[in-house]
Order: sequence, then structure tokens, then C-alpha cells
Amino acid sequence: MADKKLVEAITSMNTDFAQWYTDVVKKAELIDYTSVKGCMVIKPAGYALWENIQKQLDSMFKESGVENVYLPMFIPESLLQKEKDHVEGFAPEVAWVTHGGLNPLQERLCVRPTSETLFCDFYKNEIQSYRDLPKVYNQWCSVVRWEKETRPFLRSREFLWQEGHTAHATAEEAEERTIRMLDIYAKFCEEYLAIPVIKGRKTEKEKFAGAEATYTIEALMHDGKALQSGTSHNFGDGFAKAFEIQYTDKDNTLKYVHQTSWGMSTRLIGGIIMVHGDDSGLVLPPRIAPTQIMIIPIQQHKEGVLEKAEELAKILSSFRVKVDSTDKSPGWKFSEQEMRGIPIRVEIGPKDIEAGKCIICRRDTREKIEVSLTQLADKAAEILETMQKEMLERARAHREAHTYTASDYEEFVKTFEEKTGFVKAMWCGEQACEDAIKEKLAVTSRCMPFEQEKISDTCVCCGKPAKKMVYWGKAY
Amino acid sequence: MADKKLVEAITSMNTDFAQWYTDVVKKAELIDYTSVKGCMVIKPAGYALWENIQKQLDSMFKESGVENVYLPMFIPESLLQKEKDHVEGFAPEVAWVTHGGLNPLQERLCVRPTSETLFCDFYKNEIQSYRDLPKVYNQWCSVVRWEKETRPFLRSREFLWQEGHTAHATAEEAEERTIRMLDIYAKFCEEYLAIPVIKGRKTEKEKFAGAEATYTIEALMHDGKALQSGTSHNFGDGFAKAFEIQYTDKDNTLKYVHQTSWGMSTRLIGGIIMVHGDDSGLVLPPRIAPTQIMIIPIQQHKEGVLEKAEELAKILSSFRVKVDSTDKSPGWKFSEQEMRGIPIRVEIGPKDIEAGKCIICRRDTREKIEVSLTQLADKAAEILETMQKEMLERARAHREAHTYTASDYEEFVKTFEEKTGFVKAMWCGEQACEDAIKEKLAVTSRCMPFEQEKISDTCVCCGKPAKKMVYWGKAY
Repeated sequence: MADKKLVEAITSMNTDFAQWYTDVVKKAELIDYTSVKGCMVIKPAGYALWENIQKQLDSMFKESGVENVYLPMFIPESLLQKEKDHVEGFAPEVAWVTHGGLNPLQERLCVRPTSETLFCDFYKNEIQSYRDLPKVYNQWCSVVRWEKETRPFLRSREFLWQEGHTAHATAEEAEERTIRMLDIYAKFCEEYLAIPVIKGRKTEKEKFAGAEATYTIEALMHDGKALQSGTSHNFGDGFAKAFEIQYTDKDNTLKYVHQTSWGMSTRLIGGIIMVHGDDSGLVLPPRIAPTQIMIIPIQQHKEGVLEKAEELAKILSSFRVKVDSTDKSPGWKFSEQEMRGIPIRVEIGPKDIEAGKCIICRRDTREKIEVSLTQLADKAAEILETMQKEMLERARAHREAHTYTASDYEEFVKTFEEKTGFVKAMWCGEQACEDAIKEKLAVTSRCMPFEQEKISDTCVCCGKPAKKMVYWGKAY
Repeated sequence: MADKKLVEAITSMNTDFAQWYTDVVKKAELIDYTSVKGCMVIKPAGYALWENIQKQLDSMFKESGVENVYLPMFIPESLLQKEKDHVEGFAPEVAWVTHGGLNPLQERLCVRPTSETLFCDFYKNEIQSYRDLPKVYNQWCSVVRWEKETRPFLRSREFLWQEGHTAHATAEEAEERTIRMLDIYAKFCEEYLAIPVIKGRKTEKEKFAGAEATYTIEALMHDGKALQSGTSHNFGDGFAKAFEIQYTDKDNTLKYVHQTSWGMSTRLIGGIIMVHGDDSGLVLPPRIAPTQIMIIPIQQHKEGVLEKAEELAKILSSFRVKVDSTDKSPGWKFSEQEMRGIPIRVEIGPKDIEAGKCIICRRDTREKIEVSLTQLADKAAEILETMQKEMLERARAHREAHTYTASDYEEFVKTFEEKTGFVKAMWCGEQACEDAIKEKLAVTSRCMPFEQEKISDTCVCCGKPAKKMVYWGKAY
């Protein structure tokens, strides 16, 4: 029944996944390109998704004791340079402000690529005594990284995110907070975005500039490529030493604080698209969908149809519901609802009204369910819940089907030649092997998962004794 | 009962209002200064206020059909220059990005001081037909203006705000939206912030760079100075012509759109402080206060006191309530609650528990009310409501008591020499008179109020026939 025109406007995902993605973000009206290279407009449909992500994550943060703050978007060059590894990691990709009004600045400022240095400068003044700890602050803001290659949501020169920055009295407490935030991220991805994730630790090569340990959640996209979906860093006392953030402990001695940071961004929207989308467009998990139900009247010019549609909207008012009463054809409206990924549509026409029923159509399975109008709200709730659950299950099954193991180098190479997905393989712990693998196969270590398995005894690259099982993959 | 130390840390408002303000923003822990000159950290207590402002305003916006979007923070220089008046108004005070990573940019980018030009560039692509109108978009973001003199919340180089930008088919519709948003701003200030405002139109001299008409809401602070608290601009088709934003109307002819923009910022927090604060610190209107009720246990080491305090918190859980169970003295806790402006505190000690009562103390009047524990929730609701209402009434009475009239120049000068407040006086409509008044008295025209009165027949400055009654004042 869906109109073909809108659907034909997007490339099939099996033909060209990258083009499919670009088509979907445009046709589902999530973004628009701008005159500013590498920066995008997030349109209402895209921003409403981000608002729902924010709302849910923010409430999970607050439940765990996080307070929100706002720090400046500018970092003086001298401040950025205080932590050696950090500046090396970020300086090549920051935007520099050199003039304020008509005058050159005495010291140039970079637009924050991340705010560790600013938080350190702030905490240095805020923290004097053990009574001032812990500090568990977060900010919602935009950051800038001067990327060469950009893609909407996945990699853009400016993006929206949250960045949490904490300071603790002990190393144990910092580690506990690092893992706690990773757990919140994983829970959020699975329960709200229906995206299953692998929790693990990054290798030294892949960790955040300045961190002692970086933990990550890694998700697998429909095309078999990995998406790093959230990271949580334990800095130990490295930044504290560089910035001299000390507190007087109960025993009256001066000690360095232990710090963490953790972030998630609009990149998650790219993940939602690439995990759940299909050739008709977006498929949004019900819990995060800005509109959960679209009511589409059939033969709406006939008496009573539009009124009935509005009446159903009232019955469904505990959901995020809309009626499409525009003068477009039902087929076109179906296509639009499908393109935008609205989880369920309710079709209601004169015959349905007469029979006291309507049709509910699920976006993911396209299953059509005849529902008595007296049971509509209950049935809608049930279908949305089932859909949320099955979307996660399907994504998990897809990931399992695209997760491979390799015991030796030959198998490793062959798997990556023939398949795209995660490959679980053993690693000796040396960066030389990671470098070699990256150079030859263009894949990277995604993480050393918390759930370790023993695939073989030796490193898949060099054959030396293995230390860790690693998830390898091509990544966005 | 309140401990003197914390209170003594702030200057009395009658001694030095500016210093009092600076002391309050620091001691109430709203902000901290940073290494970035003119930029501040908004700390948890300050940011929670902004979150409540955002939440309420955003819901009022959405009720009136506004959709949220996000546009880039950078504006290419050539784009900023497209509208002549606009660039003249803003170019002297923008921050310029000249390098991305290690390379100089081909065209420098300014950090948005406001986003009219970006929205125009966006709308130019989005709008083709009358079917695409109206566009009623808003964004919550930070903007940068390279001010020389800065003060926390009132004028800083970076501040948080919302900026709405709309495009309409007709001039009437644009004007209607401009006024509608001003009305929402006024309603929000009065009903939520307990700040009464004067609605009116800015003179040509004071209007926004590029606008056809700027409307404003002006509030009077405790020290008699005015605060421009929100503005709404009607651009007519000026920007549309500069950016060539045209649509095909129903009659198949090409027409220019008519645009508006409107904004409110973290400056509102400065307004709350300066309208309601006193020598003990902040006084927050209950509807916007992050914490509405602070429960302070007396003799908390005695058995059952802390438990009872927690029990009361549960009874009061429909409010934003906290228990201060730290090991500080009750007097110190009182001072902190007062400094932070928490609307009411509940005092509960062993004797109160025995008598089945507690004491509620209002932050604004310091009135102490004995309340039976069985009636606590009802009574708290009633007191918070009364407080909200009386704060607005008091602010209005203060404004009325500091609003003067002047019929001629002598009276005008004398009033400003002797008083600080609004002076209502007639004006001929010529900028020369505004310039002369500003030069001699350092006051500006705040607005031509919608509610016009006739103070005299002639301009208070030049004596020529008067066209408008104007509110004059010293402004932040």
C-alpha cells in the first residue's frame, strides 16, 4: 500500500550502505547540510530524537548523583598544553580563535574538543578538602574537532554530546565511577535504543589521550562495521598532577584527586539508523521515538473519518501520538511514516469505523494487526513493548551472526576477506601487532571485552603467548 | 538563629549594590570565574536554575507550535556580511576562528553571536512553496559576544540562551508571531520568575541590527536600574531579500518570506537575583527554585530526629525537597539555605516531634509558621503559592514606587539626579534627543510601552510636539 516514490528515493542498503545512510538522514529529514563545511543542521525530527536521548540519559545520571554545570567553550592554549598526552592527541584537530572583535588576542583560544583541561582548572579552585569530594559533574554542550572526512552524526566538525568529569578521593572510587557510567551507557543503549553492546577496555593504542584506562561500549551496525558508542575514562591522578589538584585528607596530608570522564554524543543517532533501519527508511525504537504512533485516516473526506481519527488520538494520548490529516494520499502518508521510522501506524477508514476496529501496522515487521477500538490503548501498549523487545533481540541475533572467531593469522585474514563483522581473536598485548593488523587489514582492536574467552593460546598476529581476547573490526 | 559568618561574607546591598551582586553569585555558588577572561563556570546551583527556566519556557514554546533544531556554531564571514545592518551591528564584537587544526582556513569563521544568517541560509534551501510555511524553529545553545566589560549572567563573552527564528508567508503572520512570543516571555517572567515587566517597542536607535521592529520586556531591578529581559524582532522581508528566501504562493507567484527572531538568556538569572535578593543572599521564586524546601533537623544527634526529617521529606515528596543532614550547626545550615534562596525551610527537633509539629520559615518574609505534622504537605503548598504571589506583588510595588514622570527637561534631569528608576516622559521621535539624553544623563530609552499615557504635549528634550511616551532609565 505504501507509495513507491518516496521509497525509491533512497538507495537499497545492500546496493550501497553508505549511500543508503546518506539518503535516509536526508529523506527522514534528520539533518541538512550547511555552508559550513563539515557542520550540519539537526532538523526537528533529528533534534527531537536527541531530546529524548538527553532526557532519559540525564535522568539516569541524576539518579546516580550527577549534577549538571556549564563551562566555557574556549580553552586558552596554555591550559590545553598542561597535560602532555592530552595536547598531543587533540591539538592537531582543534579550531583556533585568534581575534576577538577587531583585535588579535594575546593568547589564542581553542574551541573545546573536550573539556578535561577546563574542568581541571575549575576543580583546582573548588577542591581544598576531603569534604569537597567527590565532584560528579556533567555538561551538555557542543564540541568541535576539525575532522577531514565528515559524515552526518558519525563524524562532524561540531557535534552535541554530554561530558561527565569527576574528581574523587581515591583510585578505587574513581574506578568504580568509571565502570558505573559505562554500565549506565550500556543499559541505556540496550533498554532504550535496542542496541546491544560489548563492554570492554580499550588497548593502550586506542585509549583516550591522557587516560590511564578507557572503557568502551561497542555496537555492531547492519553492515558489519563497529560503532564506538560511548566511552568512560579513568585518568588516575595524571591530570591532577599536571594541574595540581590536591586536597587535604582527614589525616591532614595533601593528596592528589583521582579523576574520570565519560561521554556520549549525537553519534548514537547514527547508531540507531544503522542498527535498525531498512530499505524503507528509519525504524525507531518505541521508547526513544519522538512520535510513537501515527494515525492515518483512510478516505478522510468521508463523513466522520477525521473525527474518529482525532478521537483515537485522544484514546492514545498516553503515547506520543499524531494524526496525519494532510491532503496527501494514504499511500504517501504510509511512506512518510515508514521513512521517519514511526513505530506503529493506525489505519482507520469508513469500513473500520463501521466494524468498530482499526488496523495497527508495525514499522519493523510490517505485521498488520486488526484491533477492536475498545481495546486500542492496551493493544498499542502491548505492541510497542513487544516491538521494543524484538528490535533488541533482532539486533543481538544479527550481531551474533556476524561475530566470528579466528585462531591463527590465516583464519583471521580469511575471515576479514570474506566477512564483515566482529572477529574475536587472541592478542599478545604488543602495539606492534595492532599496528601490523591495522596496516594490512584496515581493522582495529575494538576492545578487550570484560567477558573474556580463550580462542587459542597464541597471538593471532605474532604467535607469541596471548594475553587477552580482543574484538577486532572495521569501525566508523 | 542564622549564623552570622556566611551573611557577613556579603556586602550589604545598600552599601554597594554591585559588590552585593558579585558576592551573592559567588557565595550562593551560582558561578565561578575561569582562566578564560569574561567567561564563567555555571555551577550546579546556577545551572539547575537555568534547567528549570529551560524546561518551563520550552514547554510554553512547544504549546505554541515551536520545534527545536540545532545549527552550527560557526558562521562564514561572507554569510555574516549578507545583511548590511546586521553585520555592522555584530562584526565588532565577534570571536574569529582562523585556523582548523594546523592549517589556516580559507575563509575565517565567526563564533555565532546570534544565528539569523545561518537560519536564513538554512531556510533558503528548506522553503520552496507556501506548503513549507510557516517555519517556527528554536534552538537552545550558547553564543559569543566579545564584550569589554563583563559581569556574571548580565554580560559575559559567552552566554546560554534560546533563539527562535521563524519564516512566514505574510507580514501579518510574522507580526503576530513576534507579539505572541513577547507575550509568552512576559507571562513566563511574571508567573514563574515573579518579575513584572513592561512590554513595549524599542526605538530605532535601540532596535536589533537588521530588524524592522524590536519589542522588549523591561524589568526594574532592586537598585532602580532596568534590565532588558527578553526581545522579539520582526524582520519584515529584509533578511529574505538579502538571502533570497522566496516561496511560490498559491497564486503561483514568487514571494519573499517574512521573518522573526526572539531570545531569552541566562541574563534572566541576574534578574532573579537583583529583583528578589536581600542582604542574606538569594531569594528564589518557588516555581523556579531547584530546591523548594530544605528540611533542617535540630539536635539531629538525638534519637529519632534524622529519621523524622527523612519521613517529612517523604511526606513532601511532591515538592523539590532536601534534608540537610550534614554535621554543620543548625545556624550555619539556616544561613546556607538563606544564602541559596531556598523558598522555605522546615525546622524539626525533639520538642517539635513530641508536640507533633514543625516550624516552616519563609525565606522572603522570614515569617515563622507553626505547622501540625498532619497538615504539613497542604500547608507547604499553600505557603509556597502565597510566597510566589507576594514576591510578584512586592516586585510590582517596588517598580511602581520607583517609576516617575517628568513633563519637562528640568524635571527630567532633576528626577534622574535624585532617583534611580523608570522615568516616563514624552518624546518627539527624533534620535537626536535620545542621543542628547544619553550623553547628558547616561540614560537610554528602554521602550515605547504598549500602554501609552500622555504625560505632556511636548518632547521632554527638545520641546517639539511629542509622538510617544517612553520609559527612560539606566540599564544593565
